[in-house]
Amino acid sequence: MLMKSATHSLTEQLSDRFAQRIRDRLLAPGARLPSVRQCALQTGVSPSTVVSAYDKLLALGLVEARKNSGFFVRETRAEPPSAPGSMSKQRTVRAWEPDTVQAPRGNSAPIDATALIRGMFHKVSNKPQPGMGVFPPEWLESTFMPAAVRKVTGTRALHDFSLQYGEPMGDSGLRRMLATKLATLSVPATPENIITTVGATHALDIVSRTLLRAGDHVMVEDPGWAVEFARLNAMGMRLLPVPRKPYGPDLDVMARYCEVHQPKLYVSVSVFHNPTGYCLAPGNAHRLLQLSTTHGFHIVEDDTYSHIAPEHATRLCALDGLQRTIYVSGFAKILAPNWRVGFLAAHPSLIERLLDTKLLATLTTPALMERALALCMAQGQLRRHAERIKSRLDAARSRAVKLALNAGVSFAAEPAGLFGWVDTGVDTDALAQRMLDEGYLLAPGALFHAERKPSTLMRINFATTQDAVFWKKYSEMVKTMR
Amino acid sequence: MLMKSATHSLTEQLSDRFAQRIRDRLLAPGARLPSVRQCALQTGVSPSTVVSAYDKLLALGLVEARKNSGFFVRETRAEPPSAPGSMSKQRTVRAWEPDTVQAPRGNSAPIDATALIRGMFHKVSNKPQPGMGVFPPEWLESTFMPAAVRKVTGTRALHDFSLQYGEPMGDSGLRRMLATKLATLSVPATPENIITTVGATHALDIVSRTLLRAGDHVMVEDPGWAVEFARLNAMGMRLLPVPRKPYGPDLDVMARYCEVHQPKLYVSVSVFHNPTGYCLAPGNAHRLLQLSTTHGFHIVEDDTYSHIAPEHATRLCALDGLQRTIYVSGFAKILAPNWRVGFLAAHPSLIERLLDTKLLATLTTPALMERALALCMAQGQLRRHAERIKSRLDAARSRAVKLALNAGVSFAAEPAGLFGWVDTGVDTDALAQRMLDEGYLLAPGALFHAERKPSTLMRINFATTQDAVFWKKYSEMVKTMR
Repeated sequence: MLMKSATHSLTEQLSDRFAQRIRDRLLAPGARLPSVRQCALQTGVSPSTVVSAYDKLLALGLVEARKNSGFFVRETRAEPPSAPGSMSKQRTVRAWEPDTVQAPRGNSAPIDATALIRGMFHKVSNKPQPGMGVFPPEWLESTFMPAAVRKVTGTRALHDFSLQYGEPMGDSGLRRMLATKLATLSVPATPENIITTVGATHALDIVSRTLLRAGDHVMVEDPGWAVEFARLNAMGMRLLPVPRKPYGPDLDVMARYCEVHQPKLYVSVSVFHNPTGYCLAPGNAHRLLQLSTTHGFHIVEDDTYSHIAPEHATRLCALDGLQRTIYVSGFAKILAPNWRVGFLAAHPSLIERLLDTKLLATLTTPALMERALALCMAQGQLRRHAERIKSRLDAARSRAVKLALNAGVSFAAEPAGLFGWVDTGVDTDALAQRMLDEGYLLAPGALFHAERKPSTLMRINFATTQDAVFWKKYSEMVKTMR
Repeated sequence: MLMKSATHSLTEQLSDRFAQRIRDRLLAPGARLPSVRQCALQTGVSPSTVVSAYDKLLALGLVEARKNSGFFVRETRAEPPSAPGSMSKQRTVRAWEPDTVQAPRGNSAPIDATALIRGMFHKVSNKPQPGMGVFPPEWLESTFMPAAVRKVTGTRALHDFSLQYGEPMGDSGLRRMLATKLATLSVPATPENIITTVGATHALDIVSRTLLRAGDHVMVEDPGWAVEFARLNAMGMRLLPVPRKPYGPDLDVMARYCEVHQPKLYVSVSVFHNPTGYCLAPGNAHRLLQLSTTHGFHIVEDDTYSHIAPEHATRLCALDGLQRTIYVSGFAKILAPNWRVGFLAAHPSLIERLLDTKLLATLTTPALMERALALCMAQGQLRRHAERIKSRLDAARSRAVKLALNAGVSFAAEPAGLFGWVDTGVDTDALAQRMLDEGYLLAPGALFHAERKPSTLMRINFATTQDAVFWKKYSEMVKTMR
């Protein structure tokens, strides 16, 4: 509900709210604003106030009116100014441009590159945020992390590594620890096949830039991770969405893609898949690897959730021994999202090319956090910390599942890991907008598809949905939308 | 000279030395090994030992023999294995591939992506390295840097910023300091036009990825910065080398490129240009900006040497007010190369797109070093540190110039800034190989051209060429090569 204020009229308050959300990408380009009647009901103002507010957004160039169908968010990102003669006639294929990227099935709206990412950084309120992608900061607090930082930042140590570019592959102490850790997952890696990166995101970026060229076909999981879709899209790749089943990707679909499109890469989260929480079954993994050998595509396995993974979870990199697979992980989920320490492990024949890509993009990576992380790993502190968080997550998940079921939600996937993939029965794009008014950021299902389409599903973070207040508000809201 | 050893034969020692250099890219793909006779003379072994060593390199697949012309380094980077059917017939333009990038004039060998970069990180010996691109670590030591790190890594502060992704644009405290600093250079920027990055290299990468598409033409300086050429090349851009004169780029050449190729971007170091040390003249700057308006290209101005720049140096971003220009700089040259803190400043209409590119590549950047850097700047400590380094560099430059002139070197550009651009009268690729045997890493002229070609020029770092021992060795070596 909007409240009268001495300084801002209701019209101003309403248009400011929409303008802010459009700028923050919480209302994506192409999204439809609520009808005047709906909006008036929701916000408790008169229809004429809504009309004035929408007119103001129109004047600001943030929305456009379409005849008989309402107001829609405009593509607000300005193109760089171009002189009339500046378009080269030689460029017949301009595959970096999203509009030339054709999805193989149906019509695909361009993915909004950053709706979810911007949301990840957006402080909506002080309430726990069901749509967030990481553990709440207070879960990650520890005494060993600051102690490790103090140890590596003594004056002598700090000068030693700060005043030179450092090791191209990344801190060798950390790479030794990572090789040991990978051995426990049966992934055969030595420090010489490991490259550190600016978070797992950077590792995935390096792999794409090294293996792919604009116009290449890439198989992605559907549903899957929006940031990956957005990056591949921005690089001019053609995305082939492979349905993700409880046991793994749909191999029949994959085989057909291979016949028709000769994809170069498959991007996958095997363990605690985002958003469903599924884990790959061994048989599916084996047949998937056979397919990759037959058709000559690489697989990048994003093991972001490794720290909270079940002990004997199946990983493609373990089965395949890093032959056609590349392993990617990081520490944002378990230690410190802001440190941006990630890594990749790959076959020796690829490492030189991957390293070139890293050097050309950022030269080296900062050693400070890499060294502190190595210390955290060396004494088993990180492993014990992860165990504690796992137990806490198990308890949180039980509570959240009960509350969710009571609120009438059904689970589209067996609850596991950090995320729940739930069916609300209503359009979750609209629901997300309404819940934002109440100070809650949701992750609507549409964000997890390479071809954005309306969805009644959404992803919840079990660590941040144990709050009865949220579920009460949720139930009320869904009731009004049915 | 090679010495007999109980464990390694002379043949092994010689082949190992070449193998190591080929792997480290200190011998670039396509480079010719010395003739058997030359090599025998240089290393003091018999011709038959050289023949055996070369045979071993041949067996290792590191070199190839060409009839009547000797041994050449092979392209060693393995292509990813591909199944026979995996090449898509639809892709008529594969512009990410270096072999489809056509330089507009003459034949261009593919740039060795990382010869110089690998060199930057390569510890050749404990001697001062004339080819290095930064100040020696001992010049950068300070008490204020560790103090600033201690301040931002107190337990509470560390938890505060580490346990969440952080601000997408970068630490706001640092961005405020940077805006103030840019104001002193007459570059109009607010914290909202500034994005922090993983070093200046990452900033240049973000600009290229945002503004360019594979196949676009980009104007670069000739001579210029090899890493930039290599990255643009890897992204499938077509490089247009513009001769860099003492007063700035050759605008006649640039105008012709604009007519024929409609380039999208010009990448430039205005102040203390690398490798020549030239500074842009105001009149050239003005006409260059007129050209950019007429032909609709953007300019990215890499101000990496800003900290040691003359007080009223001309900058394109200041004249243009960030209309068609994008400002890039970092702190590797003055504070801590390994921290990887850089930034860009751009017009508000571009900032959202640049930010998207940053988020898709790395999500956020680590706040720890950004906050420490903001502290170093806040109290004027960094500025005073830079002043000290400038004075020290002035003294070093005088000494180095005297020694260089005595050694028979002539300066191709008036000595200024960190680097000297000198003519040796002999092929500097060959000279660099010979000096490597003596423990000195040089930066041969061929590395500074988009189209790699033999050169008698080389870049020297004034801070690391004040050593009479180096110049003595240099003179002896050049004498044997004439």
